[in-house]
Order: sequence, then C-alpha cells, then structure tokens
Amino acid sequence: MAYNITVIPGDGIGKEITDGAVEVLKAADKKFGLGLNFAYHDAGGTAYDKFGTPLPQETIDACKASDGVLFGAVGGDKWDKVDPAKRPEKAILGLRKELGLYANLRPVKVADALIEYSPLKPELVRGADLVIVRELIGGIYFGEKCESEQHNGVERAWDLENYSVPEVERIAKLAFETAKLRRGKVTSVDKSNVLATSRLWRRTVEKVAKDYPEVECNNLYVDNCAMQIAVKPTQFDVIVTGNLFGDILSDEAAVVGGSIGMLPSASIGECTSLYEPIHGSAPDIAGKGIANPIGTILSAAMLLRYSLHEEAAADAIEAAVDKALAEGYRTPDLWKDGFTKVNTSEMTKIISERV
Amino acid sequence: MAYNITVIPGDGIGKEITDGAVEVLKAADKKFGLGLNFAYHDAGGTAYDKFGTPLPQETIDACKASDGVLFGAVGGDKWDKVDPAKRPEKAILGLRKELGLYANLRPVKVADALIEYSPLKPELVRGADLVIVRELIGGIYFGEKCESEQHNGVERAWDLENYSVPEVERIAKLAFETAKLRRGKVTSVDKSNVLATSRLWRRTVEKVAKDYPEVECNNLYVDNCAMQIAVKPTQFDVIVTGNLFGDILSDEAAVVGGSIGMLPSASIGECTSLYEPIHGSAPDIAGKGIANPIGTILSAAMLLRYSLHEEAAADAIEAAVDKALAEGYRTPDLWKDGFTKVNTSEMTKIISERV
Ligand SMILES: CC(C)[C@H](C(=O)O)[C@@H](O)C(=O)O
Ligand SMILES: CC(C)[C@H](C(=O)O)[C@@H](O)C(=O)O
Repeated sequence: MAYNITVIPGDGIGKEITDGAVEVLKAADKKFGLGLNFAYHDAGGTAYDKFGTPLPQETIDACKASDGVLFGAVGGDKWDKVDPAKRPEKAILGLRKELGLYANLRPVKVADALIEYSPLKPELVRGADLVIVRELIGGIYFGEKCESEQHNGVERAWDLENYSVPEVERIAKLAFETAKLRRGKVTSVDKSNVLATSRLWRRTVEKVAKDYPEVECNNLYVDNCAMQIAVKPTQFDVIVTGNLFGDILSDEAAVVGGSIGMLPSASIGECTSLYEPIHGSAPDIAGKGIANPIGTILSAAMLLRYSLHEEAAADAIEAAVDKALAEGYRTPDLWKDGFTKVNTSEMTKIISERV
Repeated sequence: MAYNITVIPGDGIGKEITDGAVEVLKAADKKFGLGLNFAYHDAGGTAYDKFGTPLPQETIDACKASDGVLFGAVGGDKWDKVDPAKRPEKAILGLRKELGLYANLRPVKVADALIEYSPLKPELVRGADLVIVRELIGGIYFGEKCESEQHNGVERAWDLENYSVPEVERIAKLAFETAKLRRGKVTSVDKSNVLATSRLWRRTVEKVAKDYPEVECNNLYVDNCAMQIAVKPTQFDVIVTGNLFGDILSDEAAVVGGSIGMLPSASIGECTSLYEPIHGSAPDIAGKGIANPIGTILSAAMLLRYSLHEEAAADAIEAAVDKALAEGYRTPDLWKDGFTKVNTSEMTKIISERV
C-alpha cells in the first residue's frame, strides 16, 4: 500500500517551504512506514511563465488522481499586470473549484509558549483554540460578475453574492461534525440584518442545527464577529461562515493567534483535499532560505490526519514542531533575544530529527 | 441666526444617551451662543410600535429640513420576528438612503489615558489615530436582492454587489480631502484579486489619486487589512472602502481602539448629515441609566464641527470629555479599581460643567 501526494510549490517562498514539509513527511514515512510517493506539479505565476496558464490541466489531473495535495503559495507583484483571468491567484481559485474543495478549515490554537507573539494581551488570548470553517467554492467569489457595463448612464461593475440551500447544508454539517469532535459549539456568522443571502444562510444553518441537539449553536453578525475575535477569541470553538466573510475573519483570527507563519489549513473536497499554510508567497524573502516552514509542515500533518488517516504520524509531526519551539528554535520572523535563530533548512532538519 | 437639530433617540439606550448629548449641546449653546433648537422624532422599533413603520415619513422630512441629525441607536431582540422590511435596522438604512448619506466617517483615536482598554498590547496601539471612510449608500447593502428562487433545481438567495464610477469617485474624493487635513495618507481597501466590483473600485480610486499628488495612496486587500488593523493600527491615516468592508473593518478598528462606548461617527450627506455613536441600542441595559453617553456626546461635537462649522464649541466638548476622563470618571462599562464610577446622567453633568 502506498500514498500518492501531489506537491505544488507555486511561487515565491513556495519551493523552500514545501521542500521543508516534504523532508519532514519523509522522516515520518521512515518512522511509520507510510509508503509516501511525491510528484511535483506547477501552478501560479511559475506555471504562467512556463505554460501561459496559472493552472495547467495536467496539474489538475494529477491532484485528482492523488491521495492529497500539499500546496505552497502563489502570487507576486511580478504578475500584477497579467490579465485577471491568468493571475497566479486563479490557480488556487481554480483548484478549489476543479477539486470541489468546499470547505476550508483553519485551526487557530495559541500555544502558551507562543503567546507573546499575539498582538493581544496575553490574558485575552491564553487558551484560545478555535477553528474557522469557511465555505470555499460558493458565494460572491464564484458568482456571476461583470467587469464593466453602462447602467443608468454610468459605468458600473458587479458581482453576485449567492448561496443555495444544499451548499449551506453541506458546510453547516461539516461544521457541526467538527464541533462534535471538539467542544461542541458552533457560531454561524452572517449579515442577515442586511443581506438576503445571509437570511437563507441563517435559516438553513438553524435547520441543520436541529440534527445536532448536542451541539450549541449561535449566530453573530459579521461586524460583531470581527469585534469579538479581537476582544475575546476564547469564546469561540467552531465558526462557520461563507467564502468572503471567512476570508476576512480567518485572516483576522490568524494574526490574533500570533505568527501567521505557523498556521496550517486544510481545504476539504469530496475526492481529494488540499493542504497549505495560510501565509502567502512572500516574494520579498523568496530564495533567501529564511522563510518559516512550520505552517507548511503543520499542513502536511493535517494531510496525514484528514486524508490518509495516519493519526500517529500526524501527532508525531505536531509534537516535533512543539518540541523544536520549546527548545527555543526560531526562524527570523519569530526570533527574539534569548532564542536560537535558524533558517528554513535548519528548522526543517531540527523538526525532522524530532519526529 | 439659529440651528435646527433633529434628535432621534431610537430604541434601547437611545433615549438616555441622546438626552446626555443634548444636555451637553445646551451647555455649549449657553457658552457660545449658538442658538440651537431641538426637535424630537421617532425611528426604529419604537416607531414601528407606534406607527407600524420603523421610519415614518415625517421623521425623514424633519431630518431633511434640519441642519443636522443626532441619532441614538435602533434595534433589539423584541423586533426579531418582525418582517425584514420593517425591522428597526431599516430605519437607519432608510435614513442613509433618503438623506443621501454617502459617507460614514469613523475616527478611531486612542487617548493615552485610555490605552489600557484596548485588547492590544499598549506598545502596538499607542498613537493610533485613523479614520475609516466607508461608502454608505451603495454596494451590496443596496444592490438588488432575492430572498428565494429556484435555480438549477435548488433554492437559492442572492444579493448584488455593485459600484459605479461616480459613486467611487465621490467617496474617494472625500477620503483624499480628509487625508489632506490629516497626515496625508489614504489606504484603499478592496478584494480586487477576486471581485470585479473591487477592480472598478481600485482603478477609480487610482484615477482620483492623480488629483492629489500630495497625498500618499496605497491599496490593501480586505483580508490583509483585517490583519493589519489588529497588528499595526498606527500605520493607518485614512482608510477608504465600500459599504460592507467598511462595516466590518470599522467595527474591528473600533474595538482595537478600546471601548466602543466612546466612539462617534458622522454620516455625511449632500443636504444634511447624521451623527451617531458606533455602538448599538444595548437593550440589556436600557432604562438603567448606566449607558456610556460619551460616544453620543462626541457625535454631537462632530455635528457642531462638520454641519454647523462651530469649531470652538466642538473643541470645547471634546476637551470637556478628555477632562472628565482624565479626572477619573468612568461609566460602568469602563470602570476599574481606582476610578470614580458614575452613571449616565452624572457623566453628562460632569462633562457639561467642563464645557
Ligand atoms: C489568494 C486569494 C484569492 C485567497 C482568497 O481570498 O481566498 C486567499 O486570500 C485565501 O484566503 O486563501
Ligand atoms: C444596523 C446595521 C444595518 C448597520 C450596518 O451594518 O450598516 C450597523 O452595523 C452599522 O455599521 O451602522
């Protein structure tokens, strides 16, 4: 038995961080005899430069045929002037759509050792442990759009926000299932005092909630949620919301948790799933070998857990990361006096040895 | 010469806080001989209960005929089951539309004395002084919407996000004019890597920027902005953005600044403008006389400054608030050991005496 993993380094620091995660996966493979095979494919600006498209068909096919996708990051100023339809971001949006990655799970857990990296006061953030479940292939991101039209004598552009009942049901179920394995609380976020889509969202979530009497469920307006994440992140267990609100709130929650270089994410699909750090391609430090590989390494651990059900190996990687941090190793983004500064490949090696 | 001010207490704590602000305005009137006349009108749930509509026509007419509108707050669970078209929130949305209140200005300035109320570490928030300029009568809030329709065999709902070039030009100009009077920096926030509306927004703002070579202008994606507000609020001077993003970001910025009970807002229109605290109607503490009136009092000061151009009187009110706080007076929402706890009317009196 063997697992096939598609690796998509992407742009900027993508190569360095996926190299790191693959090395750690190989260490886990050696220890747990997982039988991992890796195949590399292009996406993003790099793919655009080579093939004239940010998402070649063979990359999509490879992802579909594999047991899990490890993704680095895409994007960079370099491609700012490229036609919107061919920008690097289209690769990630396209993969979400093509692979049916309907849910993005973003855990934010603040380790006591890292509490000082949060912009919030320690007493507010201590113990925070939440996961944002973001709908990923619907909403205004994928609604019909118009770049420019004449309307009542003026030029306008538009995008259609929309959700169907089955789309909301699917993501809501995943949120409730996730909450059952955690602390049993779901907060659904919408703007139902203004938006029709949010009203459908809310009534559908409330209907699904009836099937989960053991899970507590409440609703928050998105503006209020943006406040609550900043003042009391510990109140949340599972937050479920649409694509656009999820984009904004998960990034806010990420920084509240400390360094975004540390945070992984899983994008869950019906046939395969994709795992990537939440940070971007950081073109400014690309190629310098100083990027923090931990977000990608923890994404690899999520891949082992959710896609391959190799729980022990996933636990071993997460424990190795905790150990490396507890021993005081830090990449430059997190380095402070009193810690040992290491680069990407050193951090990778340190974590691999501890797996 | 006299000024006519329309006062709309609204629901919940609305009456207590507008009473406070009117008392302070009267103190300023006495001192500066402004000649203020006050007329009271209904809106929100209270209006719905009396007249069956949250926004009676005579309230709209009174606002239009006046020199400025002082607004308390609307809403409450009591009206949760009311038909969406008649909910209390419709009063404020309706007033925005009817009065053409196209811009919402929300200053967030963190006084050194109040720095401890911010959830952020003091060193991150010290010196923060920004204003969010939110477009208020366009975008997805006022786009066409559909509560329910069959589409490809399933039920869906939708809302149309949309902006026209003139709408963006108008709000962008106001942002640049505002920046000229401040530190000369505008940050325009959009999601132009995904939304067509954002791409029109960005290119229009960039065009307007050309008329303001003395103002520095940069762009941020909304998800990134949600992060930046939480990690480095001091980087911002003027943030300009659309209705929905502005709603979310201004609430986030508000809590970062400390107590939201303290923050005022101005909604600027072509014929008249409306001033309200950014907090809600807080039905849980309504009628107890303990609400913090300062957000409303500072809104009244903005009314004097922007609508009546009574700069000296506005300054006097703001100075009186600073003085009351510096002397240690706090309403229960902000009270801590070592301070003097006062209720709404005591705080009002203390501020009035210091005008
Ligand atoms: C790159 C961009 C399109 C993407 C998004 O907004 O979804 C990113 O911000 C994310 O959250 O993964
Ligand atoms: C009450 C509600 C409709 C309103 C809005 O979202 O605009 C409020 O949140 C605000 O920001 O003034």
